[in-house]
Amino acid sequence: MTARRIVILTDGRTTPHGAKTASCVIRYKTEEVVALLDTTQPGKTAGELLGVGGTIPVVANLAEAPGANTLLIGIAPSGGKLPAAWRKILLEAIDRGMNLVSGLHDFLAADPEIAAAAAKKGVEIHDVRKNNERDVSNRLNLREDCLRIHTVGQDCSVGKMLTSVELTLALKKRGHDAKFIATGQTGIMIEGDGCPVDCVVSDFVNGAIEKQILANQHHDFLLIEGQGSLSHPRYSAVTLGLLHGCVPQAMIMVYEAGRKNVHGMDYIPLTPLKKMIEVNEMMASLAIPSKVIGVAMNSRALSAEETEIERKKVRDELGLPVCDVIRHGSDELIDAILAYRAKLFPHLAAKAG
Amino acid sequence: MTARRIVILTDGRTTPHGAKTASCVIRYKTEEVVALLDTTQPGKTAGELLGVGGTIPVVANLAEAPGANTLLIGIAPSGGKLPAAWRKILLEAIDRGMNLVSGLHDFLAADPEIAAAAAKKGVEIHDVRKNNERDVSNRLNLREDCLRIHTVGQDCSVGKMLTSVELTLALKKRGHDAKFIATGQTGIMIEGDGCPVDCVVSDFVNGAIEKQILANQHHDFLLIEGQGSLSHPRYSAVTLGLLHGCVPQAMIMVYEAGRKNVHGMDYIPLTPLKKMIEVNEMMASLAIPSKVIGVAMNSRALSAEETEIERKKVRDELGLPVCDVIRHGSDELIDAILAYRAKLFPHLAAKAG
Repeated sequence: MTARRIVILTDGRTTPHGAKTASCVIRYKTEEVVALLDTTQPGKTAGELLGVGGTIPVVANLAEAPGANTLLIGIAPSGGKLPAAWRKILLEAIDRGMNLVSGLHDFLAADPEIAAAAAKKGVEIHDVRKNNERDVSNRLNLREDCLRIHTVGQDCSVGKMLTSVELTLALKKRGHDAKFIATGQTGIMIEGDGCPVDCVVSDFVNGAIEKQILANQHHDFLLIEGQGSLSHPRYSAVTLGLLHGCVPQAMIMVYEAGRKNVHGMDYIPLTPLKKMIEVNEMMASLAIPSKVIGVAMNSRALSAEETEIERKKVRDELGLPVCDVIRHGSDELIDAILAYRAKLFPHLAAKAG
Repeated sequence: MTARRIVILTDGRTTPHGAKTASCVIRYKTEEVVALLDTTQPGKTAGELLGVGGTIPVVANLAEAPGANTLLIGIAPSGGKLPAAWRKILLEAIDRGMNLVSGLHDFLAADPEIAAAAAKKGVEIHDVRKNNERDVSNRLNLREDCLRIHTVGQDCSVGKMLTSVELTLALKKRGHDAKFIATGQTGIMIEGDGCPVDCVVSDFVNGAIEKQILANQHHDFLLIEGQGSLSHPRYSAVTLGLLHGCVPQAMIMVYEAGRKNVHGMDYIPLTPLKKMIEVNEMMASLAIPSKVIGVAMNSRALSAEETEIERKKVRDELGLPVCDVIRHGSDELIDAILAYRAKLFPHLAAKAG
């Protein structure tokens, strides 16, 4: 397989919020990314605009990245539709012989013009959200000694995927057998497998994620990426199906400090963190006993000083470990996970000790 | 439009549980049904096997129902797949010039053999679950004076659709402007419109049902059919999306007396009714304040005497009106709905008084 040399398309939306997919792919697949394509900000760098990716350049057209062989769509818009103006760029990429990677709900391979052009040039289209899930959950044959840790959130776009990846990496670093279970298009682009639950027919959401669990529970730790929030006006169906499909024994609550309203719906206030913990524990425990054992704070909007004040406040209010996995590292949460596991599986602790 | 003369296909599964779709279509569209097709029980009647439909005959093959022009698939199997043995029957129906109506997840129109045969004979295939929902919820522009009443359940297959239809009919009978909002294939077959939420891509479940509300809120009462249960291992994604998409001010809890375990998953005990009420009120109230104001008991498994004992027990335990809308009629629940509305919308009560 030829190594991927990716241009990420974020035209006009190269911001940490607007280009969530781009930011995460750059963070975890840095070596594969050769440029960002944004006609409105050529000459800048990924580091300047997204806070990750250092000197990866922003280019105004594909001709400026002649070695690239893949165009990856770097946004995940609400509704998952292709911005109309991007069609021309995609067709040009195909014409240059580049493969396409997309996480949109509107599948590129189902677009007659794009599909025909790709077929003619012999390039590949990878619609990451495409699936044909048709199995219901059975909640049978779960391995008891596998600790399923699910990141749940106060809102969408707070850092659930990033937290799951960071915790997986940190557990591995300490010598544990951990696996990240991707449940969204960006996570799948990073991990190379997973299930795009938000694009699964609703009757089969619980079953689709259960299959991921059953296929991976030979690992000792599964870090299952959350989606949306149980209180999210738009996406709560996805969130609950995921929660009940992965039956976590433990959850990490993820939130963004300073955010007051639902992302993209600023007329709807967020449900308080404490209530969100109560709601998640209640809903998860309809399946098996489950606890929120730590809080991952996204402090990107805060100064270092503000972050520490917020961290103390939330620790005191909730009585849980709290950290920003990027700013502080994951140690505090990893310690909490290992302590919880030792309590939950005393026979494993004895063996290890 | 030619009147429909329907044969309902329930081959080998003509039981109240196995043929839920058949039972409900017969109950509310009696005049359109000419026969049931079940090769294992010819000569019996719908009344004998399903408890509804009186003398509607069970036939062993389509030749025995020569006047029929429509074959309707009368089951809703878990997973929504076409039983393999039924293909021959469908092809024979097409060959006889009959239209097909199906609520399966596997669309008949997407089956090459069936689609080709239908095209050749010029008959119609109506896949009731087919949809292309792609809009997210916005939770805006809800009419305040429209009372949204949502049937929620302890389990699937307890009678949420039937309760919603009966309450709608009873409200109309008392002169109110009420509309049944169908959310499943059977309800849609009866009402002629609605949204098959369990077949909507999960990101758009909340938005799909919100559209139904916005399109129908000129009515004073919307009775929104529930799906599954918030504690259902398989279908909770559908249930929560529906709950958050229709933002009910009031809920009716539906359950089947005597049922101990999840329907089709007899190794998983049901969550107690009281807890289910708590869970539904908590989750609904993340959107707007919402209460369970009555209980619809499905007492089909009980004797008359057992029913009254159960009814008193549940009334005492929950402090709510309780009735079986088939056995007792809907009056007790209608009274509760009207009293709740008068309290919620005092200006309307004043106008009416």
